[in-house]
Amino acid sequence: MPLVNIRLARRDQPTTAAQKAQLIAGVTRLMQEVLDKRPESVTVIIDEVDPENWGEGGEPVTVLRRRRKQIQA
Amino acid sequence: MPLVNIRLARRDQPTTAAQKAQLIAGVTRLMQEVLDKRPESVTVIIDEVDPENWGEGGEPVTVLRRRRKQIQA
Amino acid sequence: MPLVNIRLARRDQPTTAAQKAQLIAGVTRLMQEVLDKRPESVTVIIDEVDPENWGEGGEPVTVLRRRRKQIQA
Amino acid sequence: MPLVNIRLARRDQPTTAAQKAQLIAGVTRLMQEVLDKRPESVTVIIDEVDPENWGEGGEPVTVLRRRRKQIQA
Amino acid sequence: MPLVNIRLARRDQPTTAAQKAQLIAGVTRLMQEVLDKRPESVTVIIDEVDPENWGEGGEPVTVLRRRRKQIQA
Amino acid sequence: MPLVNIRLARRDQPTTAAQKAQLIAGVTRLMQEVLDKRPESVTVIIDEVDPENWGEGGEPVTVLRRRRKQIQA
Repeated sequence: MPLVNIRLARRDQPTTAAQKAQLIAGVTRLMQEVLDKRPESVTVIIDEVDPENWGEGGEPVTVLRRRRKQIQA
Repeated sequence: MPLVNIRLARRDQPTTAAQKAQLIAGVTRLMQEVLDKRPESVTVIIDEVDPENWGEGGEPVTVLRRRRKQIQA
Repeated sequence: MPLVNIRLARRDQPTTAAQKAQLIAGVTRLMQEVLDKRPESVTVIIDEVDPENWGEGGEPVTVLRRRRKQIQA
Repeated sequence: MPLVNIRLARRDQPTTAAQKAQLIAGVTRLMQEVLDKRPESVTVIIDEVDPENWGEGGEPVTVLRRRRKQIQA
Repeated sequence: MPLVNIRLARRDQPTTAAQKAQLIAGVTRLMQEVLDKRPESVTVIIDEVDPENWGEGGEPVTVLRRRRKQIQA
Repeated sequence: MPLVNIRLARRDQPTTAAQKAQLIAGVTRLMQEVLDKRPESVTVIIDEVDPENWGEGGEPVTVLRRRRKQIQA
């Protein structure tokens, strides 16, 4: 019955199908270990959000990442 | 005032505009019948999720569907 | 597989268990009729929100309801 | 710590990166002014929804917009 | 940056603070292991939902649990 | 039409009705200024979350706050 929604800002290197499968498997195992839930009852949904649409500290992630790259350069 | 959010894993045959309109009309009618809400006050949002991003029972829906097809074949 | 989340502002007369059961049954039937989903695969979650925490048109519902009552009085 | 999720039906003229940045900045400032939150602690996520997937008053926004245009014509 | 929202139907034996802390720690570790996210950037929110407000297979969880108990008795 | 959902961890000093009204008014004004939305079309929902149910950096906010108080003492 548990529903788990994971929201991520999309990165330059996209999250792979294998990583998504690992997230789904890992969250499901956690629900089983901590709350004794049957794996079949666990639903996981991953939302990948455009970095232009995700803000942290008052700025879009696109801006934050650009600045971080300039500092590192 | 009621808000209804419907989340679906995207299928091979995409949900059509007509089906979405039926969902919107049906949910709105239900809010009117059960809770006496004015239709104008009802908002419905449908999210179609990539099957790779939707997990059930510890596995992505893409994997579950592939296995089901193999069993049926 | 479909997940349906219904959000409602709490009213003076609370939504009864029978009304909630009708919402759950009605939404599930709709998913079956429109999208051919198996009833067992449908999850419905109802969130009842404090009217102080729900705003429409820039004002909390508590304020809107008070004003509407004064107009009717 | 506050999380703010803004959901919008996509319009013919898409919301620009500059408008999204203004929304993110404005919401963050509001959290700081009203609740004394540190800007770094505020997360804002904007979801742009296909108008076919958004219903108001029992109809998809695509239908509502088409009708409004016909009335204006 | 990842946000994780866990939704659970409340049980007779409530989820303890220790179990919630385990869920939060476990999900955060998973984000670090699979996606290389810094732990400080992970937010987890647990929503406990009244079983009367949660439906599966067209019925409220309250009804489903009552029936299961009668079968076991 | 825009929907805005604000999620906050509950604090020792609860968010007042006046602060919630300010959040609702402020977000609605922002939607009008940035996106030219009619105020009547804006819905705002505030969710106050138990700090035990909110995790940051792998720990519940209850634990984080306790530690911060000890450091300040």
